Amino acid sequence: MNEFQLIKHFFESEQESSLSESVVLGIGDDCALLQMPVGKQLAVSVDTLVADVHFPKEAPANLIAERALRTNLSDLAAMGAEPLWFTLALTLPQADEIWLREFSRGLFACAREFNIQLVGGDTTSGPLSVTIQVMGLIENKSAMRRDAANVDDFILVTNTLGDGAVALDVLQKKILVSEADQIYLQERFYRPKPRLMEAKLIREFTNAALDISDGLVADLQHICERSDLGATIFVEDIPLSPALKHLQDQQQAYRYALTGGDDYELCFTVSPENMPQIAMLIAEKKLSATVIGKMHLGSGVQCELKGEEFSLIQPGYQHFS
Amino acid sequence: MNEFQLIKHFFESEQESSLSESVVLGIGDDCALLQMPVGKQLAVSVDTLVADVHFPKEAPANLIAERALRTNLSDLAAMGAEPLWFTLALTLPQADEIWLREFSRGLFACAREFNIQLVGGDTTSGPLSVTIQVMGLIENKSAMRRDAANVDDFILVTNTLGDGAVALDVLQKKILVSEADQIYLQERFYRPKPRLMEAKLIREFTNAALDISDGLVADLQHICERSDLGATIFVEDIPLSPALKHLQDQQQAYRYALTGGDDYELCFTVSPENMPQIAMLIAEKKLSATVIGKMHLGSGVQCELKGEEFSLIQPGYQHFS
Repeated sequence: MNEFQLIKHFFESEQESSLSESVVLGIGDDCALLQMPVGKQLAVSVDTLVADVHFPKEAPANLIAERALRTNLSDLAAMGAEPLWFTLALTLPQADEIWLREFSRGLFACAREFNIQLVGGDTTSGPLSVTIQVMGLIENKSAMRRDAANVDDFILVTNTLGDGAVALDVLQKKILVSEADQIYLQERFYRPKPRLMEAKLIREFTNAALDISDGLVADLQHICERSDLGATIFVEDIPLSPALKHLQDQQQAYRYALTGGDDYELCFTVSPENMPQIAMLIAEKKLSATVIGKMHLGSGVQCELKGEEFSLIQPGYQHFS
Repeated sequence: MNEFQLIKHFFESEQESSLSESVVLGIGDDCALLQMPVGKQLAVSVDTLVADVHFPKEAPANLIAERALRTNLSDLAAMGAEPLWFTLALTLPQADEIWLREFSRGLFACAREFNIQLVGGDTTSGPLSVTIQVMGLIENKSAMRRDAANVDDFILVTNTLGDGAVALDVLQKKILVSEADQIYLQERFYRPKPRLMEAKLIREFTNAALDISDGLVADLQHICERSDLGATIFVEDIPLSPALKHLQDQQQAYRYALTGGDDYELCFTVSPENMPQIAMLIAEKKLSATVIGKMHLGSGVQCELKGEEFSLIQPGYQHFS
């Protein structure tokens, strides 16, 4: 099969069968044509995953696809936007039919789960990497932005932190965990859950928000800078999964949670007035979230463990450091 | 500088100074937020350029940026859409400040020229590649689509064909040309002109259109398939630049024009009723375009040189063949 037939076979045919009305023209022309509704803004985000940087080259193709789409969907969740369309730029060393079949299987399974449609793409030959751009819609003026935190806001995170970073160290055989924990961590790494439902629940009660991809401290720093405030994290309040609690060194577990990337949980800030609504969502088990700190005047992120300064060896995941 | 500072320094600062009203939120949050006007459709296209596949690794960084943005803009031109926003996913072996400065210089010079704004991006570490997604707007139902050719339509192309493919062979030292021709071809390769003005002129008189990126025959084949028709190209009518006319083997020059990629000229079809308007645009020198063939019943693309079948060694540029 040549390039055109490959793309057609694995991406176009699947896509054509499920196009919604918003897609005037999908894959196969120079551009996709998308119909925009009135009164909404378009939210756009792009992310690249590179083999042996963001995932092991030999990882199962369906999981690479899932991870690429899920991490991008997480950016839509971070703004509170509803997923609608995505494009895929796939660079591959060779056109391996089995690999492509598995990749597209993972991709479309995930796309169906989150109700997002592939509308365009490009396939090129080269070192394996996956670039996905997601597009979603959000009501005018209702996006959760990084620059909207206020003094005295509570800082919350969804679910548990640190799993993604530990998973990467386990995948790279840097640390050993039990088989059960390994299965749990691998699932967290390859199939992170974009917190779209959670975003919908918290949106009207939340000031600032983002998704944690570079590590809690590094990402919270963005909220601080953009909102011109400081933040203090109460380290002992950070929610950890059983897999992280099983690590021998609990301080190290907290460091994974504070500085490790790849969590894709939401970090968001809530004013004292709105905290009761959020607390009710948590009490009713509609939302899994934990207060882990406070916004205040100043700048930068401080970490305290039971009132004492908590030192971080490395302040976040950085691609070029 | 770490990753965040790098991105901020070279992309964010430049971008913030020139944001239009349509950009509610640009680089620096989880998503860009874009305000859509009423009554228009969003046109979206994505393309990846990989080092040593689409350009030499050691090519000047500003030219890599220009080529990446221009080839993407060409896809908007092919639909007749007006450029508005783009995202950039840049993968780099290391954070080389000089390289990044040159790259961003080329990128923003080109962005200003074509009035398109960078609204988001991702920078990752890995083998050099550039993925750009362009977004533009077009009035409802006025896009030029590949599936809209009719029987008896004239087939036209803008300007001259084959320069991109010859340029690539010259860059790779497969053939030798004069210094003047080399300068001309290099400019054509790195700074292809997205035919946005031409698209605006022809849109209302044109049935089907696309931009020639994989070679005239391969791309015209897409129009044939999608429109369920056949096409005949009159090879002797294909417009060639002086650089191509200087090649010793004129049949080979025509083969470059027929099967070589990277032209980024428009190929479009016009009904006999609308040909007078197009002919007037050509006569008035507002449009540089040439009739090179006809659409007809059947399937596939035939090439005739003075009434005889013209054989092509290779039916188009394919990444995975």
